[in-house]
Amino acid sequence: MKIPRSLTRVIDSFQKLPGIGPKTAQRLAFYLLHVPQSELAEFSEALVKLKNETVLCTICKNVSDSDPCPVCLDINRDQKTIMVVESPLDLIAFERTGKYRGLYHVLHGSLNPLDNIGPDEIFIKELLPRVKSSNGKSIEEIIIATNPTMEGDATAMYISKKLVSESEELKITRLGMGIPTGADLEYADDTTLSEAIEGRRTI
Amino acid sequence: MKIPRSLTRVIDSFQKLPGIGPKTAQRLAFYLLHVPQSELAEFSEALVKLKNETVLCTICKNVSDSDPCPVCLDINRDQKTIMVVESPLDLIAFERTGKYRGLYHVLHGSLNPLDNIGPDEIFIKELLPRVKSSNGKSIEEIIIATNPTMEGDATAMYISKKLVSESEELKITRLGMGIPTGADLEYADDTTLSEAIEGRRTI
Repeated sequence: MKIPRSLTRVIDSFQKLPGIGPKTAQRLAFYLLHVPQSELAEFSEALVKLKNETVLCTICKNVSDSDPCPVCLDINRDQKTIMVVESPLDLIAFERTGKYRGLYHVLHGSLNPLDNIGPDEIFIKELLPRVKSSNGKSIEEIIIATNPTMEGDATAMYISKKLVSESEELKITRLGMGIPTGADLEYADDTTLSEAIEGRRTI
Repeated sequence: MKIPRSLTRVIDSFQKLPGIGPKTAQRLAFYLLHVPQSELAEFSEALVKLKNETVLCTICKNVSDSDPCPVCLDINRDQKTIMVVESPLDLIAFERTGKYRGLYHVLHGSLNPLDNIGPDEIFIKELLPRVKSSNGKSIEEIIIATNPTMEGDATAMYISKKLVSESEELKITRLGMGIPTGADLEYADDTTLSEAIEGRRTI
C-alpha cells in the first residue's frame, strides 16, 4: 500500500523543516486532510507570499514589511547604541523584554568554518560603516549579543577586533552571563557557575 | 517592533498544527525565509492540492489516489479478513510490517463522548454491510486494531457487540497485548505486565 502522491508531496515538504522528522511530517500531513480547504488555501498563500512581502532593512538587516524597518525609523530610540544579534528571532526576544531601547544589527548567522560560513557570508561588513559614519549621531556602544555557543563566541571575538580597529573610543560589551531565572543551581554546568561567580553583583 | 504581516500569517498557520506551539511556529516561519522561492512554491502547491487529489475509498475508507484503493482492488490479498484501524497512519504502520495480507477498514477516529464523537461520527456503520454481504467471499475474521487507550477500547467493545448481533459465526479478535520489543521490564506499567502474563505463549 503506497501513500497517495499528493500526501507524500506534503510529507516531503514538512520533512525539510528543521526539527521535523519523517513520523511528525506524516502525522502533520494526515492531520491536514481533516482541515477545511479554506484553511489549506490560506496556509498555501501565506507560504508563497512569505518572501515576496518581506524585505531586509538596508540599515540593520532586520526582516521587515518596509525599508527601513520600524526600529531604524523610530527617532525615539537611543541612536547611540547598537545591539548585534544573530537572527531576527533574537531581536524579537529582546524587544519583548521592553528593556532595550537602542538600535539593532542582525547578522543572519554566526561564523562557522565547518559549515563554510565566514565573515562574508553574514552581515558583518555592513555593521562597520554604521559605527564610522560621523553624521553627528555617532555610535557610543556596541552590545554583542550573539549566542553563548562556540560559533557565537567566535563571531563576537571577530566583530570586536574589527570594531576596535575602526574606532578606539567605542565601548564594546557582551551580554551578562550567569544563572538564568528559575534554574536549579544543582544542575547548572561548571562554565555557567564560573561565569555567575565572576559576574556577581552587590545587592 | 512588530513581526511583519506575511510572517505572522505563516506563523499562525503553523501554530494550528498539532504539537506545534508558538515558539516552534516562529522558528519554522523564520527558517522558511532562507529557503528558495521554488521550494516554497512547491510546498504551497502541495498543500492546496492535498485534499483535491485524494479520495476516501468507498469500501474501506482509506485515504487514496483512486477509488477503490489499491488494497481493496488487490485480489491477491486475503478477502476473508478485515482489520479495523482508527486512522490511515495505523494502516500504513501495519502495511510496513508486511505481516498482514487481509483487508482493512479505517474508522477515522474512535468513540469519544467527551469530544462529542459518537458511532455516527466515525465510519462504523460502513463496516457492517461489508461483513453481511453474501457475495460468496464472506468475511471470516474481524481484527479490531484500535489503540489500547480508553477510547480505543470502548470503540472495540462497541464494534464487537454490533458485529456479534449481525453475524454469529464471525470470529472477532483484538491485537495481542504485552511488552513491546526493546522495552525495559523494570519500567513497564502494571497493566502492560498483567496483559503480558495473561498473553504468554509457549516457546
